[in-house]
Amino acid sequence: MDRRGFNRRVLLGGAAAATSSSLAPSRAAGAAGAAGAAGAATAPAGGQVRHLRLYAEKLPDGRFGYGFEKGRATVPGPLIEVDEGDTVHIEFENTLDVPASLHVHGLDYEISSDGTAMNHSDVAPGGSRTYTWRTHVPGRRADGTWRSGSAGYWHYHDHVVGTEHGTGGIRKGLYGPVVVRRKGDVLPDATHTIVFNDMTINNEPAHGGPDFEATVGDRVEFVMITHGEYYHTFHLHGHRWADNRTGTLTGPDDPSRVVDNKIVGPADSFGFQVVAGEGVGAGAWMYHCHVQSHSDMGMVGLFLVRRPDGTIPGYEPHGPHEAGASHEPLAPLASPAPPAPRDPHEH
Amino acid sequence: MDRRGFNRRVLLGGAAAATSSSLAPSRAAGAAGAAGAAGAATAPAGGQVRHLRLYAEKLPDGRFGYGFEKGRATVPGPLIEVDEGDTVHIEFENTLDVPASLHVHGLDYEISSDGTAMNHSDVAPGGSRTYTWRTHVPGRRADGTWRSGSAGYWHYHDHVVGTEHGTGGIRKGLYGPVVVRRKGDVLPDATHTIVFNDMTINNEPAHGGPDFEATVGDRVEFVMITHGEYYHTFHLHGHRWADNRTGTLTGPDDPSRVVDNKIVGPADSFGFQVVAGEGVGAGAWMYHCHVQSHSDMGMVGLFLVRRPDGTIPGYEPHGPHEAGASHEPLAPLASPAPPAPRDPHEH
Amino acid sequence: MDRRGFNRRVLLGGAAAATSSSLAPSRAAGAAGAAGAAGAATAPAGGQVRHLRLYAEKLPDGRFGYGFEKGRATVPGPLIEVDEGDTVHIEFENTLDVPASLHVHGLDYEISSDGTAMNHSDVAPGGSRTYTWRTHVPGRRADGTWRSGSAGYWHYHDHVVGTEHGTGGIRKGLYGPVVVRRKGDVLPDATHTIVFNDMTINNEPAHGGPDFEATVGDRVEFVMITHGEYYHTFHLHGHRWADNRTGTLTGPDDPSRVVDNKIVGPADSFGFQVVAGEGVGAGAWMYHCHVQSHSDMGMVGLFLVRRPDGTIPGYEPHGPHEAGASHEPLAPLASPAPPAPRDPHEH
Repeated sequence: MDRRGFNRRVLLGGAAAATSSSLAPSRAAGAAGAAGAAGAATAPAGGQVRHLRLYAEKLPDGRFGYGFEKGRATVPGPLIEVDEGDTVHIEFENTLDVPASLHVHGLDYEISSDGTAMNHSDVAPGGSRTYTWRTHVPGRRADGTWRSGSAGYWHYHDHVVGTEHGTGGIRKGLYGPVVVRRKGDVLPDATHTIVFNDMTINNEPAHGGPDFEATVGDRVEFVMITHGEYYHTFHLHGHRWADNRTGTLTGPDDPSRVVDNKIVGPADSFGFQVVAGEGVGAGAWMYHCHVQSHSDMGMVGLFLVRRPDGTIPGYEPHGPHEAGASHEPLAPLASPAPPAPRDPHEH
Repeated sequence: MDRRGFNRRVLLGGAAAATSSSLAPSRAAGAAGAAGAAGAATAPAGGQVRHLRLYAEKLPDGRFGYGFEKGRATVPGPLIEVDEGDTVHIEFENTLDVPASLHVHGLDYEISSDGTAMNHSDVAPGGSRTYTWRTHVPGRRADGTWRSGSAGYWHYHDHVVGTEHGTGGIRKGLYGPVVVRRKGDVLPDATHTIVFNDMTINNEPAHGGPDFEATVGDRVEFVMITHGEYYHTFHLHGHRWADNRTGTLTGPDDPSRVVDNKIVGPADSFGFQVVAGEGVGAGAWMYHCHVQSHSDMGMVGLFLVRRPDGTIPGYEPHGPHEAGASHEPLAPLASPAPPAPRDPHEH
Repeated sequence: MDRRGFNRRVLLGGAAAATSSSLAPSRAAGAAGAAGAAGAATAPAGGQVRHLRLYAEKLPDGRFGYGFEKGRATVPGPLIEVDEGDTVHIEFENTLDVPASLHVHGLDYEISSDGTAMNHSDVAPGGSRTYTWRTHVPGRRADGTWRSGSAGYWHYHDHVVGTEHGTGGIRKGLYGPVVVRRKGDVLPDATHTIVFNDMTINNEPAHGGPDFEATVGDRVEFVMITHGEYYHTFHLHGHRWADNRTGTLTGPDDPSRVVDNKIVGPADSFGFQVVAGEGVGAGAWMYHCHVQSHSDMGMVGLFLVRRPDGTIPGYEPHGPHEAGASHEPLAPLASPAPPAPRDPHEH
């Protein structure tokens, strides 16, 4: 049984398809691990050494992005997907006219791959540097204590543009998702990244999505990352997840809370998989920040779950959720400023 | 052994008593499930189909509320309590002069019960609509993966008054609790709902409570919901809970953190049970938002735990926590300033 | 095998060494409990009755602090470390010229030890009062339900200076850590306390640390507490922890999320142990609030992990993270006012 994911991603034509990079392309089904499954495709053991190129670029609209190829940078940057035990060497080239870097959460890296100016691991304009990220499987230490593995929904971002914490780089779009899978983890049909960055989703204009498409029954994975200044609450209509490592309960004894709403702050990340429309059917399911003013100001997108025939009950593509939406650049907020949500295109 | 809850609720005469609706009135003790207990009353298996009426109303003081009967709306709305597997059909009537709706978290509903304008599931003034909520037990999918059940501490709210996200309806009080129990879940003697809505608790005036009463040894359940604009931290004096699905550890192997303080944001919800005064005795135990300016501005109530003889050591009903309390209707939030953090030297 | 912690703490010469008070000094290795280990030193069973003195004092720089001896107060106050089952009687003396108190999170205390003015458990200037804190082991109740134990990363603080919630006392430094260990919990070589209090770390000047030192391989424990007005996200470079009770997974079946970044709000607390430099080596590893403006304004410190020879690769003690550091007393918070919420009706 092939992994449906690869075809699905290509067919859907979303950004994820173009920018997702699975570093372990040959997946096998049936190899269930502790959290595994009988029929679902699962992640294999890791242990590979991989080499990637990553470019920091200025996009035509003024945003900054990361990309695997020159001229192909995106916001968020491409998904980097590895299996526990893998090592990734990333040849990073900074095509910007300011120093930039690559700082990753959750993985193992020596101080020389920290991505900070303090540790001299940033990259001058036009320069290059190899960052090495390692991952490890869980296991027992010599002293008998348990060491957790690297599996998780993580992310990378710039740590030097604008300020010594990369505030300017992050604001302009220099961030992306990392997924580290454990042997036996269930593989999704598609992976989508949602970044609440200041008052935007993925630096898109307010009321501008992004929307994600699926067909009822697809196993869809969301990687949710937060950046910037504000706290948010991520809410998805009609679907839920477990507030644990994978977003799925390990079984009847897993005490984790099941939620459909979660408070998050800058640099938090989590992920989960849902079976699209399971128990609820097709529909235009909103996802949004549930801080009331944030949703009202446009931190909203749609999870468009289609019937097998492609239709979505009751959905009009230009319906009220886009009322007032004008895909013009986001205007600066007036004063009682929560959010100084800034227009990413202006930076 | 009868469930003490029913009598207790009536005896205590709290709001919860008048507005709580258990949809599974016949509880049996001794049927312990995985998380169950030897002597405590526990939830039975679900599978019932229930019918409810729910009204959205304007209260005499200008707030909006939900109620099971005309003229009986409350803020928060009544507790809707179901067992996993139950289906609830809610005949909703909107007696307001603006469109209103019913949107639920955590349960299964088709897109026609989404409660949003975008999905045409709101209700015009004077109109009615049946919303259907389903719940399901946990179990293994055909592909071997685990599907979580619906059990949890959830909530419902308006999604259309004021803005397309119901910001106006929520601000005025259109919200309420939903508890979905799993077979074997321990049943409480009383359930109380605490909603941190903007800078209020349950839309009550600052420094105005609400207070909740119990006798030492009562098993008291709190459902804690957040709404509006702000993040808060919920703190309860003298009592703790587990940060998992039920608020109680499943046993010695449950790794969940035990807490007495928890950060929450809009639309987050959780719940837990405490044995009143366990290990600490009777007392006027404060619960409050622990954001300092929020507590100082009056986001405080009392968990009044009485000795069997009805007394509370050291408690004077009109103590300092009610200083400044005036039970006038809540004024609209003024210069919506949260917490102008004040200089303590000025106090 | 002796516990390395005692010597290590003294050798490192940090604040923790001078102010840490383990109430159970005789630790034994090899007594592994449920979460225990084969070679690591672990906590013994509790059950002791202890007596402590604690003073609230004004420091020469104007801050307020708690201390075990007169003239030795610190910010944060000294670590109080107990084993489940222990009882602690604290003879508290208030040397300030305003009423002050001691309120603890997580432990068992009767209402007379609540530390609030409402419950008449504060202390007049120059006065004394004995606060009693109890702890208990987990176990099954008579009704079959599970009662959690007291183990956890907790904290104490003033509840009356400035306002009835101690806003002034907390702002000036009246807070400290409490660790309650369960039999079998692994003991660290050193424990450090990090308090995000308003926009400071431990009331230190911006960009002023504190920094913590260790040698590769040390088992270092962090107790992370938040106070004041703001939400924060705690991030540590190069190291991770489990989001559960101990910060360490109990084993392969523990479903908890492993994180290196966590949203927190006032009075939240958690803790974890890391093996310094494990899998990543020596380095000057930043820890900081990841809210971008907070880190830019100086909520940053270093976890300085040395090689066995004492060197730290690439580290210059007066590097950029200390730019702007001035160890003057903290000025009152200027404007960093949180977001002003907007009235949705105005949108």
